[in-house]
Formats: sequence, C-alpha cells, structure tokens
Amino acid sequence: MTKPVGKQDFPVSNARRYLEPGPVVLITSKHSDESNIMTLGWHTILAFSPSMVGCMISEDNYSHQLIKQSRECVINLPTTELTDKVVGVGNTSGAEIDKFSTFGLTPEKARLVSAPLIQECHANFECRLHDDALVDSYNFFIFEIVAAHVALQPAYPETLHYTGDGIFMVSGNHVDKRSLFSERLL
Amino acid sequence: MTKPVGKQDFPVSNARRYLEPGPVVLITSKHSDESNIMTLGWHTILAFSPSMVGCMISEDNYSHQLIKQSRECVINLPTTELTDKVVGVGNTSGAEIDKFSTFGLTPEKARLVSAPLIQECHANFECRLHDDALVDSYNFFIFEIVAAHVALQPAYPETLHYTGDGIFMVSGNHVDKRSLFSERLL
Repeated sequence: MTKPVGKQDFPVSNARRYLEPGPVVLITSKHSDESNIMTLGWHTILAFSPSMVGCMISEDNYSHQLIKQSRECVINLPTTELTDKVVGVGNTSGAEIDKFSTFGLTPEKARLVSAPLIQECHANFECRLHDDALVDSYNFFIFEIVAAHVALQPAYPETLHYTGDGIFMVSGNHVDKRSLFSERLL
Repeated sequence: MTKPVGKQDFPVSNARRYLEPGPVVLITSKHSDESNIMTLGWHTILAFSPSMVGCMISEDNYSHQLIKQSRECVINLPTTELTDKVVGVGNTSGAEIDKFSTFGLTPEKARLVSAPLIQECHANFECRLHDDALVDSYNFFIFEIVAAHVALQPAYPETLHYTGDGIFMVSGNHVDKRSLFSERLL
C-alpha cells in the first residue's frame, strides 16, 4: 500500500474541499482505554469559520458512546487503495475486535484531541463536539474541526462515495468552472 | 439537452442511493406567488424510514425564507448535462431574477408539495420540513422526503460534487463490494 506522504497542516476553514464532495470517511474515537474506527457516509459541512461539520452516527455503533463521552473524534479520509478495509471496518463491531490491528490501520497521535489519526488516510480532521443538541433525537453530532492534516499529493485523491447495496461510486474527473463564478463566491 | 425520460415513483426510504454520494443538488421552493431555485452541496441523509435529510441552507439565500415559511421544498438531482445551469443558479439571486426562465429550467407540478419539480433533473425528492430546531442556530433544516421520482436510466447518472474554488468532481465508475458485506447491512 502507498502511504500518504508529506502530510501538512491544512486550513480548517477549507475542509469542504475534501468533505463537501461526499466521500465515505473513517471516524476514529477514543475514551478511557477504548478506541475504535467506524465507516460513515452521513455527514455534511455546516460552516466555514468556525469549521463545522455535522455527522449522523447511529447509536447502534460502538463508536457512538465513545464519541458522546469523550466529545472528540477524528474524521479520516480514505482513498480507493483502502476500499476493502473501509468495507471491513463498516461490517464489524469495535465491541468485538480491535479494528486497527484487524485491518492493518496505523493509529497516530493527533495534535489537539485524544482520538488517533489513521496514518494510511489521505487527510485527517481533528474534531471537538461543539453541540450535542440533536444527539439524543437524531444521533446528529455537530463538530468543530480544530486541526487538519492533508497529504498534498495527489491534489484530488480518488475517494469512495457510498450508494447503498454494497456499491461505491469512485470519484472521477474534475472540471474547472471558475470562469462562470462571481468573484465573491470563489 | 437530453431530458430524463420515464421518471417513476421511487421508494423514499432508498433516497440515499442518490443523495448519500454527496452530489450538488438544486433546491426548489415556493411560498405564495414566489418560487425559486438554489444550488446546494451541504446536505446529509439522516434516516431511512421515515426518510430524513438535513440541509444547511444559508439565510443569505433568497430560498431560506421561502422554505422557512412554506415548510416545504424539492431536492432535485442534476447531472453533468446541467453543469453550467447549476453554476448559474448558484451565482445569482432569486430576489433579482426568475431562475426558471433565465436558465431554461422547466417547473413541473409536484405530487405532495407546492414547490415545483425541475423537469430536466434526473431525480426529484419532495420534502416537508420535519424539524426546525436548528434553523435559527445553524440554518440547518431537517426534512422528511415524502415522495420521490427517479428516471430509471441511466442506473448511475453522472453527478456533480463540489470541492470549492469553482472546481467540481464528476462521479466516476462504480464498484460492487457486496461480497464483502454482512447480509444485514445490504
């Protein structure tokens, strides 16, 4: 496997570049001595600054309680090289296995939160729970991204986008429509 | 332009097939005699049944008030054939122009809501506002999808996914990983 190299600090206000297209992400969490990874496709950017993202994390997931109690997580962006691991993480429970060792994913120390980064992922977004108002009613966590680390190459990594039924869309080409935009919207 | 043909009723509980991959959508709204279209990339599926979707619709958008007051909208899924119209809709204001006539998009009567469907879009999801608890604090609308209409071909339409800076990712190939899934997760 090619490990992402040269990860650098990235402006948290521009996390949308990687998350807004809707990729499947891997969420890491840690509370006391327990840590875990889960696969998630239900997230949305909510604001640029502060950098806010909302995630629907079902209470059926072992990670739900770890995040609710620790009030932190990391959103990790896998590329298609990790497809089978992403599926494996999504089809197993952290209550039964250690997903880091089972799937050969390497935890790395984050800068501002206790949840680990996944070394093999293209980008890592460290998050603190900003608002739990909708956690009990919708399992919807509103996080603030407080630090970001991104591999600078490739500029547009090949990401996975879930459609249900075991089928993933893989990100394709990029098209530049800047010439049609108002300056204030760029 | 190729118009989607043979749109059929589609199970609202499976809206995730089209929305979970994270495409840019066109939101239509209507209140009293005013209707509008806006471009949106900030949305997430929240539940299968009832079929729930959350959308961050900035109060800077003319559509925000129309939706807040009518408590309805339609989420329309454009394909890459509509790219320049999608950008046009996102770079203009319904306070100043009629976006349907300006961009040559055809309003069609919806089944359960007063907001119009966009004929040229591949799919249309009729929505009622289910919970406005986070509208004032985060501009976050929680909708229930109450009816869905989808063109059955192509099975996977080419969609647009925004990365910011005027650059769109276009959906690519699809990969089938059903063989790696637990039966209960398919």
